[in-house]
Amino acid sequence: MPLPAYDPSNIFGKILRGEIPAHSVYESADVLAFMDVMPQGQGHVLVIPKAPARNLLDADPVALPALVAAVQKLAVAVKKAFDADGVTVMQFNETAGGQSVFHLHFHVIPRFMGTPLKPHSGGQMEKPEVLASYADKIRAALAG
Amino acid sequence: MPLPAYDPSNIFGKILRGEIPAHSVYESADVLAFMDVMPQGQGHVLVIPKAPARNLLDADPVALPALVAAVQKLAVAVKKAFDADGVTVMQFNETAGGQSVFHLHFHVIPRFMGTPLKPHSGGQMEKPEVLASYADKIRAALAG
Repeated sequence: MPLPAYDPSNIFGKILRGEIPAHSVYESADVLAFMDVMPQGQGHVLVIPKAPARNLLDADPVALPALVAAVQKLAVAVKKAFDADGVTVMQFNETAGGQSVFHLHFHVIPRFMGTPLKPHSGGQMEKPEVLASYADKIRAALAG
Repeated sequence: MPLPAYDPSNIFGKILRGEIPAHSVYESADVLAFMDVMPQGQGHVLVIPKAPARNLLDADPVALPALVAAVQKLAVAVKKAFDADGVTVMQFNETAGGQSVFHLHFHVIPRFMGTPLKPHSGGQMEKPEVLASYADKIRAALAG
């Protein structure tokens, strides 16, 4: 079954167009990274390409090197920012694969020994001031 | 805390050196992909760089474009090979992040609506003939 076409009305498309706000932590010509508003753990960041792609299954391969470079950069930064013990990276394709927003994204989540991931669906919205303070820490780690 | 150095005695290092066998499905100059022997789902594949890296936190950035290109190729191939509804990609860094073999690897797992992932730790070894038949399907999907 072919994938549905990219639908630009998805929430990350709106963030890219500045139609809704996000706590962004990193931006380049090709990539944006921002805080997940329903974090599965403290400091949960999303890394997305600016180019339209539904997920990894339909993404233009030329978009991927910049994207994975940013994923690595953010993984290192969140580990440092939160003095984490590890980092979990996840990327979901289609509903059965765990995807709920249909713009390609990587989850980058700082991890701490003994602290399981919170469920994503049914998760709670984090307070904006908490997300803002986490974003500050991550930007500082990227800068330092 | 700095990461421990790469330890070449890990099991994926042994697979790369041909010291232990694997059901490989894809190989390039830079990347190897093979069946996970404790699959979290039917067709669970691992994609690794040939260059030594403990995980994404210490990987040489030059190794990443070829790696993510192979991850995409395998994601498309496993979806096709198993007529899957989606694909879950995961990459774990350090024990707290879910990592148990300390050579950088991406999990690429075909997903089916209503079928949760099996736990990885404590999972059972899949029968070699089952892994071999899955590897055949994936190689055929890559070729076609």
